[in-house]
Amino acid sequence: FATLLSAKHASAQSCCGIDNLIDQKIQAAVQSAVSAVTSKAQLICLNVSSRGADVSCPSGYKATSCACGMACGSWDIRGESGCHCQCSGIDWTSARCCKVGLNG
Amino acid sequence: FATLLSAKHASAQSCCGIDNLIDQKIQAAVQSAVSAVTSKAQLICLNVSSRGADVSCPSGYKATSCACGMACGSWDIRGESGCHCQCSGIDWTSARCCKVGLNG
Amino acid sequence: FATLLSAKHASAQSCCGIDNLIDQKIQAAVQSAVSAVTSKAQLICLNVSSRGADVSCPSGYKATSCACGMACGSWDIRGESGCHCQCSGIDWTSARCCKVGLNG
Repeated sequence: FATLLSAKHASAQSCCGIDNLIDQKIQAAVQSAVSAVTSKAQLICLNVSSRGADVSCPSGYKATSCACGMACGSWDIRGESGCHCQCSGIDWTSARCCKVGLNG
Repeated sequence: FATLLSAKHASAQSCCGIDNLIDQKIQAAVQSAVSAVTSKAQLICLNVSSRGADVSCPSGYKATSCACGMACGSWDIRGESGCHCQCSGIDWTSARCCKVGLNG
Repeated sequence: FATLLSAKHASAQSCCGIDNLIDQKIQAAVQSAVSAVTSKAQLICLNVSSRGADVSCPSGYKATSCACGMACGSWDIRGESGCHCQCSGIDWTSARCCKVGLNG
């Protein structure tokens, strides 16, 4: 870095040397951060279950699917995070709840 | 920054001062961007529903699950985004469709 | 860059010029990386299926939902990635498996 700085008064080409050096530092740090974030990004999921026909995911999670008692495959998701089983007299409802997060 | 620059001709240690200063600037900006992206990353989901045995998610979304009329829990996902309910004479099919996005 | 450097001895305002220039370089590179990562982030999903009452997603994937033979809509997810269909004598179980990744 010192060599490039002292030579700068002598030649316009040297100031491009400093410029490139800084660009390289920036690119290396940015690439490293991008790799770290993309390798750690993951789906974080959990299950919630409740008696009756309705259950909701905790705050921050979205429902990706629902399961129901009595072999019932008819359900719908209400709002972002609520599971509702449609069969009459349903005994339990569960929700699969997911969000995006980083591990580690 | 001016102090470090004028002292540089005197000592090799000063050029490390500039170098570190630039590294610190870069790290601070990169960390700030990583925190912003990771706090805003989220799962974006919606429901689509159709009469009959098939429905597809909008472009850009993947199907994470399917629900069917007639209490039918037998279904399969076709391609990335299509839900198909397998029971005979199925009256409706719905898909839970999700993608990764940023909020705010 | 050379103009700012030669003028620096004359005025404290010039060193702020170098400082700002470096900040601008950093911000431009960081913004560009953030846009690239957020436009490429996506949900990557696949289906797995097995005879019987249980099936698991491949390593790295989380189960977002399960489907079962015999029209059975009663299932639960075990651990992060296992689907279990609850109806007696279930003939097949499938899992929808997803993870976060980058395309391209």
